[in-house]
Amino acid sequence: MRLGFDVGGTKTDAVVVASAGTQDDPRIVARARRATGWGADGVVATLLGMVDELAEAAGVPASTFTSIGVGMPGQVAPGASTVTHAVNLGIDELDVARAIGPHLGIPVRAENDVKAAARGAYALHGAGASSLAYLNLGTGIAAGYVHGGRLWRGAHGSAGEVGHMSIDPAGPLCRCGQRGCIEAFSGGAAVAERWGRPGALPIRDVFDAADDGDPAAFLLRRGLVYGVASAIRVIVLVGDAETVVLGGGITALGDRLLGPVLAELDASAASSPFLRSLRLGERVDLLPPESPAAALGAALVGADSEQEAVFHG
Amino acid sequence: MRLGFDVGGTKTDAVVVASAGTQDDPRIVARARRATGWGADGVVATLLGMVDELAEAAGVPASTFTSIGVGMPGQVAPGASTVTHAVNLGIDELDVARAIGPHLGIPVRAENDVKAAARGAYALHGAGASSLAYLNLGTGIAAGYVHGGRLWRGAHGSAGEVGHMSIDPAGPLCRCGQRGCIEAFSGGAAVAERWGRPGALPIRDVFDAADDGDPAAFLLRRGLVYGVASAIRVIVLVGDAETVVLGGGITALGDRLLGPVLAELDASAASSPFLRSLRLGERVDLLPPESPAAALGAALVGADSEQEAVFHG
Repeated sequence: MRLGFDVGGTKTDAVVVASAGTQDDPRIVARARRATGWGADGVVATLLGMVDELAEAAGVPASTFTSIGVGMPGQVAPGASTVTHAVNLGIDELDVARAIGPHLGIPVRAENDVKAAARGAYALHGAGASSLAYLNLGTGIAAGYVHGGRLWRGAHGSAGEVGHMSIDPAGPLCRCGQRGCIEAFSGGAAVAERWGRPGALPIRDVFDAADDGDPAAFLLRRGLVYGVASAIRVIVLVGDAETVVLGGGITALGDRLLGPVLAELDASAASSPFLRSLRLGERVDLLPPESPAAALGAALVGADSEQEAVFHG
Repeated sequence: MRLGFDVGGTKTDAVVVASAGTQDDPRIVARARRATGWGADGVVATLLGMVDELAEAAGVPASTFTSIGVGMPGQVAPGASTVTHAVNLGIDELDVARAIGPHLGIPVRAENDVKAAARGAYALHGAGASSLAYLNLGTGIAAGYVHGGRLWRGAHGSAGEVGHMSIDPAGPLCRCGQRGCIEAFSGGAAVAERWGRPGALPIRDVFDAADDGDPAAFLLRRGLVYGVASAIRVIVLVGDAETVVLGGGITALGDRLLGPVLAELDASAASSPFLRSLRLGERVDLLPPESPAAALGAALVGADSEQEAVFHG
């Protein structure tokens, strides 16, 4: 059995995946969640602490586990286990394999969390999609591509960085320094900052206020939707993904988000036969709330460490 | 030996490639060019007429040729030989294999001309690039990706359609119906139409007039450069190509085009540490004038019909 972890800024999601048929029909036999510790030591303690919990939940001894995959925000070189610049976790650099491998004696692989979620979303979608892109709508905006079951990374492992594509030279300033980036329009952090009012769920607040007729909120929501629709367009135009699965914190809005995004895609298709031919609306899907996609994808990446089947592009 | 054809709107370029080491170190042993005939019959006559010419140029009997690849504008399904919507050639649909195969008795494969050029550019670049994108700046704007020596097509063979990515909601109307497409800013047809003055080389005329201080030409040139720089940014951000090779009719301007494009990339990097980290300027390269990249790439695609090594994504 394989372990997969999705280490988020607030909580860590973990699954145990049955080994048989892992790639094509993965079966999650146990799942656990707990708060993520802060910094490298805190994250390592979280991971190690969850292994016994997962063994118990799966009803097997921990020695049954044959590999571990860990999805984390930050940069991870293809096929490696060192995560860098995981700012939200308080981690500058962490070699996950070195930190937890000796305690467990099994192969450990790390992966960027969006790429892990892409792989998991592909597995959950089954064999129906020849290719899939996962678009993460969270604090930031990024995507991951899976073609033929394999993650597509590009030359430096940064394929899918749609967030910093500028779609409007007169758009809002992005923290990356450019103007009009998709992330400046649609990223949770950027929208919350421009909204500027306190609240635990600022994006939901913006949508609520827009519904109530607040003009600033209306503009923010319109920009957010335009950015998400633009991200879907660029993902399909440049990467020609069969399916675009949306996930991440902002998708907790469900149909309140998806409805306007589909309406924006329909509107652009109405004026463009070319876009119409791409049937963008039909390609978009929402990851269900509480989906284990990222942890599952991490488990599949971990399984690669046994098989070395990952495609580095 | 393999034959490769690049069928353009005005002329057809063809090469004979030595079979040994075809994929890694292709050797062009003969080359020929002639005017392209009009419509399906005209194109077929052009191709058949050139086979004997190429055999003579290579100093071998035509029976030595083991495969044919044909690059053409238009849509080609992966691994197929039928070209559709090759408007510039007067072709609605043409099964190239059925049309010329029986005359020659060897496998025939067709490929979209931009994708063929991408493959050829990769071969000409040698093993230096882990991945390469070819950005064609011609009547329209499109790109092709090659990763690990294999064309990357996406789900429907349309990966790389950067031309119809909108980069400015207030930009010029594109013939596709959207506003502010990269092709509306930078496509030869779109720029020539907005320039609106007669001339055999309208883009060169625009650049000349801009140099002379014509304000309309200055704006057109600035938009063209902005579109090309944006295309390079999206190609690297979304596809993470190691190298972006520019080709197509507009690149005949050479440094008059490349200089301002690099300046625009430098300017955006100056305000964005993120873009700076991508070292975009260092990744850009210009295909030399009269490069045989497209015909060579077509020959390599044709060789796949013997080996079936192409990656369909």
